[in-house]
Amino acid sequence: MPSQPEAVGDYLRGLQQRIVAALEAADGTTCVRDAWHKEPGEPLQGSGLTCILEDGPLFERAGCGFSQVRGPKLPPSATQHRPELAGAPFEAMGVSLVFHPRNPYVPTVHMNVRMIAALPVDAPPVCWFGGGMDLTPYYGFEDDAVHFHRSCRDALAPFGDDKYPRFKKWCDEYFFLKHRNEQRGIGGIFFDDFAELEFARSFAMLRSVGDALLPAYLPIMERRRDTPYGERERAFQLYRRGRYVEFNLVWDRGTHFGLQSGGRTESILLSMPPLASWAYRQQPAPGSAEAALYEHFIVRREWL
Amino acid sequence: MPSQPEAVGDYLRGLQQRIVAALEAADGTTCVRDAWHKEPGEPLQGSGLTCILEDGPLFERAGCGFSQVRGPKLPPSATQHRPELAGAPFEAMGVSLVFHPRNPYVPTVHMNVRMIAALPVDAPPVCWFGGGMDLTPYYGFEDDAVHFHRSCRDALAPFGDDKYPRFKKWCDEYFFLKHRNEQRGIGGIFFDDFAELEFARSFAMLRSVGDALLPAYLPIMERRRDTPYGERERAFQLYRRGRYVEFNLVWDRGTHFGLQSGGRTESILLSMPPLASWAYRQQPAPGSAEAALYEHFIVRREWL
Repeated sequence: MPSQPEAVGDYLRGLQQRIVAALEAADGTTCVRDAWHKEPGEPLQGSGLTCILEDGPLFERAGCGFSQVRGPKLPPSATQHRPELAGAPFEAMGVSLVFHPRNPYVPTVHMNVRMIAALPVDAPPVCWFGGGMDLTPYYGFEDDAVHFHRSCRDALAPFGDDKYPRFKKWCDEYFFLKHRNEQRGIGGIFFDDFAELEFARSFAMLRSVGDALLPAYLPIMERRRDTPYGERERAFQLYRRGRYVEFNLVWDRGTHFGLQSGGRTESILLSMPPLASWAYRQQPAPGSAEAALYEHFIVRREWL
Repeated sequence: MPSQPEAVGDYLRGLQQRIVAALEAADGTTCVRDAWHKEPGEPLQGSGLTCILEDGPLFERAGCGFSQVRGPKLPPSATQHRPELAGAPFEAMGVSLVFHPRNPYVPTVHMNVRMIAALPVDAPPVCWFGGGMDLTPYYGFEDDAVHFHRSCRDALAPFGDDKYPRFKKWCDEYFFLKHRNEQRGIGGIFFDDFAELEFARSFAMLRSVGDALLPAYLPIMERRRDTPYGERERAFQLYRRGRYVEFNLVWDRGTHFGLQSGGRTESILLSMPPLASWAYRQQPAPGSAEAALYEHFIVRREWL
């Protein structure tokens, strides 16, 4: 029987393969698959598989990465509520994706599922989980937002009715650009440091979230991918992608600290858009679809 | 006679006007001039003038901002070497600019000159200074780098032979993308928390640096602005501008903490390029001009 971390690793590798296959099928092109490993002597040992599709007809840049790192000692921040694990060796693994479509009517999507396992020498592993998914439209559609949130709620429903409301709120709080007083998108779910349920149930919840990504996103992508658009929509998409960059580089803890602490830069920055723009004090025309995005979509609200 | 902070404010406002006039003359267009002030009740009181030229024939985005803020109490970080000033009211002011030209053969330039004055109630103001300028080419030219560094050295020469070597090294250390193991550009000079000389001499040094920007940059801009370029050079420029974004949002203390602490977002982000791109593991062809940038220009070296 595989160990707990091995079982999670097997699931995550399989999830990445399924997602990448769906990405390729939707786009009609092939991802680059780039296996990497950290050199001995670097602070963390680890390896991963970075899959990325660039300049496709449907996706302008879509990355899905798996990584697995091991370290000799859990950092103090990870064990402040678990003093018995202080300084234990650990393993962290996850799948992370961001898809940037070309058509401004198709939203950008982000998903992440991850596990940290403390591996004390004289006791069984202790695992905790994190992850979630969120959607960032450039043009808002109520139907899309409701479908995405319903998919999130349904994925969490077997694990307790409290999960979706809690994780939905957490997502709104996390994906917030304080310097713009804006949400990144229409939200979704986010959770971290999760070990409330026993291992088997927590891992089942993680699988349920990971498995929900494709059914949450593909129908939205399919119904928007052939929407005609012009220069105006493209310009607005590039401008809004600037916000995605701002969030990821200024506020996202994984990205910011990953870059500052010696993570693998090209894998961390899979999330960057292929092209983004900035302009001074851009204001959408009152009553426009662009104004509706700010007023009705990238705000905190209940979608279900 | 104006107070010390008033004299510095007068100089900085005049410097901004001279720079903006030169920018407009070079581009043949007009900047937007946007005067702003912080609302009462915000953590810092302040005002400023943001000047920005967007989508001009020569400059795709070029911003030059003046700002002046007052606070009731210096933060502890500012007074650890000056305990007698702990908690004193303060005033901070500066001019900051980033010019992003359209032609990839014209480098991006950044300059900042600033002063903080502690204003103890029962003693005269105590002022310290910071600033510098640095150049970020997309295609490297030895002549340009030498001219820029010579301008920096000459600006500092009257204030001691140690200044240029110290501030050049400081600049190399500051404008470094650790996550890429790359310099942002060919450097220049950077200094902070400067109060080694008496006020009159320190302020004269600040003026000498501020006044050096136009003669350091305009000749380079003039000799490159009509260089023909095509899609390849444009693509490389957009890709390298992504590095500019990464530096400013991840590593630049002024930008990162400004955004996190409630500064005026649109003024802080004057430095963002109008358009930037990201691509996975882009590598320039061996022997190309793009490879030469990495090998011979965005590395630490002595230019004089």
